[in-house]
Amino acid sequence: MNIIDIITKTKKTQPLSTEEMIWLVNSYTSGDIPDYQMSSWLMAVCLNGLTEEETVTLTLAMRDSGEKVDMSNIDRFTVDKHSTGGVGDKTSLIIGPAAAACGIAVPKMSGRGLGHTGGTIDKLESITGYRTEMELSEFFDIINKTGFSIISQTGSLCPADKKIYALRNSSGTVDSIPLICASIMSKKLALGSEGLVLDVKCGSGAFMKNCGDAHRLADIMERVGVSAGKKCRAVITDMDAPLGSCVGNALEVREAVEILRGEKKDKLYDTCIFLTANMLELAGKGSYDKCAEMAQKAISSGKALEIFQKTVELHGGDPRICDDTSLLPQPVFSHELRASRDVEILSVNSEEIGMASLLLGAGRISKEDQVDLSAGIEMHCAPGDKISMDAPLMTLHSSICSDFSEAAVRAMKAIRFRDI
Amino acid sequence: MNIIDIITKTKKTQPLSTEEMIWLVNSYTSGDIPDYQMSSWLMAVCLNGLTEEETVTLTLAMRDSGEKVDMSNIDRFTVDKHSTGGVGDKTSLIIGPAAAACGIAVPKMSGRGLGHTGGTIDKLESITGYRTEMELSEFFDIINKTGFSIISQTGSLCPADKKIYALRNSSGTVDSIPLICASIMSKKLALGSEGLVLDVKCGSGAFMKNCGDAHRLADIMERVGVSAGKKCRAVITDMDAPLGSCVGNALEVREAVEILRGEKKDKLYDTCIFLTANMLELAGKGSYDKCAEMAQKAISSGKALEIFQKTVELHGGDPRICDDTSLLPQPVFSHELRASRDVEILSVNSEEIGMASLLLGAGRISKEDQVDLSAGIEMHCAPGDKISMDAPLMTLHSSICSDFSEAAVRAMKAIRFRDI
Repeated sequence: MNIIDIITKTKKTQPLSTEEMIWLVNSYTSGDIPDYQMSSWLMAVCLNGLTEEETVTLTLAMRDSGEKVDMSNIDRFTVDKHSTGGVGDKTSLIIGPAAAACGIAVPKMSGRGLGHTGGTIDKLESITGYRTEMELSEFFDIINKTGFSIISQTGSLCPADKKIYALRNSSGTVDSIPLICASIMSKKLALGSEGLVLDVKCGSGAFMKNCGDAHRLADIMERVGVSAGKKCRAVITDMDAPLGSCVGNALEVREAVEILRGEKKDKLYDTCIFLTANMLELAGKGSYDKCAEMAQKAISSGKALEIFQKTVELHGGDPRICDDTSLLPQPVFSHELRASRDVEILSVNSEEIGMASLLLGAGRISKEDQVDLSAGIEMHCAPGDKISMDAPLMTLHSSICSDFSEAAVRAMKAIRFRDI
Repeated sequence: MNIIDIITKTKKTQPLSTEEMIWLVNSYTSGDIPDYQMSSWLMAVCLNGLTEEETVTLTLAMRDSGEKVDMSNIDRFTVDKHSTGGVGDKTSLIIGPAAAACGIAVPKMSGRGLGHTGGTIDKLESITGYRTEMELSEFFDIINKTGFSIISQTGSLCPADKKIYALRNSSGTVDSIPLICASIMSKKLALGSEGLVLDVKCGSGAFMKNCGDAHRLADIMERVGVSAGKKCRAVITDMDAPLGSCVGNALEVREAVEILRGEKKDKLYDTCIFLTANMLELAGKGSYDKCAEMAQKAISSGKALEIFQKTVELHGGDPRICDDTSLLPQPVFSHELRASRDVEILSVNSEEIGMASLLLGAGRISKEDQVDLSAGIEMHCAPGDKISMDAPLMTLHSSICSDFSEAAVRAMKAIRFRDI
């Protein structure tokens, strides 16, 4: 096999055979194919696409490039959830305990974030003592006790994806549905959960801005998952405004606890019920409506919060944060932005809110950056709200940045309103 | 400026500004942009193309990446010729002296060949003593004496093209009209001739197999040349069968001498008259018909041969080869292929003939390979010819390969015939 022939085939929209795709992935991972040939192939994929069969083959070749996690030690039906992510997405912290409360196991491996805010692992690390790295045996033990655990993704999973992802980032070849699908699904398939719910976010605050693309991505990911023998369902959820009212690591843990306590019944709550119900339905717990009711009850009964608290404790984290969220990292500086006249909020651009959070220290620009766990933005308004003059629109928080001017300009840019 | 933004623009078919294109070419040439980013951009160009304006900007940026040759020392009107090349193309050796005999100057810099047979420089080196490398002052002296000289392209011309060309070769991004145009034209524009005739070959033996593509390439090259202030004309010539009857370095010099002697009036002769007439017309020597007559007379009068002989001598080469072509390198082994029955020749695939010559040692597979100057193929038949049983079809020559079986199979594959 020859890399120039393979590049030429994809360039001419001729499908690659299974053998060619496996050879390509393995040769690139081993270093036999240099970056400049792989990036040329990746650009050809961005512009010409891949067939469904090629996408499956690519995903499986990437899955098979490293270790796989055997979850047969877990005694309940295991359902993983993946979200394509977006500003303020803290659903994993809520639906894990809620689904566990309904009798299934939710074993999750997550990553750190690059961009607006931290990833789920960063969020969890705002709980003092919470260990995100541990042996798989301890991970399984926790899941067998509480039904839920989240740890850092192990380094030996999908080395092909790691290498290809880094190259895509630096060669302008990120936005390609088959490549996004292969990157997500190779990692999810390497984790041996029985079921998988894929939450594809769509809208201004999501990676997929265009809902047609979101549907295409959801569709191909579900097909790849099913081809690989998993129970798999992809759903689309809206991400036009930030999800919930908090953006930032400790702030989002606080908000998740508030939801688990049953104190808030907003769009974030609805999204969490929707996703949990889908996971339960996939696990055979009954009709969607019945599953949605179970999910609501898991929260209203306090069972989900109890599971979250127990899981935090088993991870070495301070369980008291569930009773007193002021034990989470608190910002040194805060700054309130108020309405200068009576207005109605038309929209909140989540990407701009994300960029403002990044300026406050809540996210990373490069992998080595330290995240300010206390930093972020609390929204006091949502699309459709009427805000009186001088009432608060949002509060900016940071411990590392006392000059809020740049972040404030950015955050205000996110809001479109009209005078009333 | 940012390479990811530039890649993304081309990927989304948004044109690059002049500043962006210059920055891209300069940053890649200096090594600030790594190969894997450039190859990704090149693939985006292959699939999305470039606008005419972008192609001009790219070409000029590549031209400006190195030294330029000032030809103001030459006292006649200077016209360069470039051919996109093909199997058996030895036109440069003929039209240079013919055009010089009509009063214009033809200063040519050529390359060595990669593939089927050697390039013009390899062909000239089959003349004992011929120096292809010399100071520019000596090059200009020869041109001022005879009107014609061919030397090796200097290394300091268009370093951007050298680097991009090598990357295209190894990243599957060769066949792109704007990239081919920029590669050819950047070098031709760095040579300061006043006029330029571009001979775009089209057909099975040419780089451009498809005549639509050949026309598009001719068109954009002419526009780029004119934009850069040169008198420039592109013509299309057919290359379905090898040009002339000889393929191989010394064999092609012999054939060029035979044409210059006026011994052969075949398709090769017609092509040379056509190209020479175009060069003369571009130099303002009169109408095309008048120029074609001048070109024919240059050959029939012996003036062109005399100029070729004098030029060879000034280059240190043995001028006696013009009187006795047996002084050129002779093959140690020869093998005749004959017709096994009475046939009519339908077509001769030049690419296959080229591959057979390569097997005989006439060309290079990698840059370091030595060329067997005596090797090659003499065709005794052309499309339309009727050949009787046992009459010769072609003769294979080599000094390094005594087993002709593989080359013979390949050469016979080139010929399509029907029984008569």
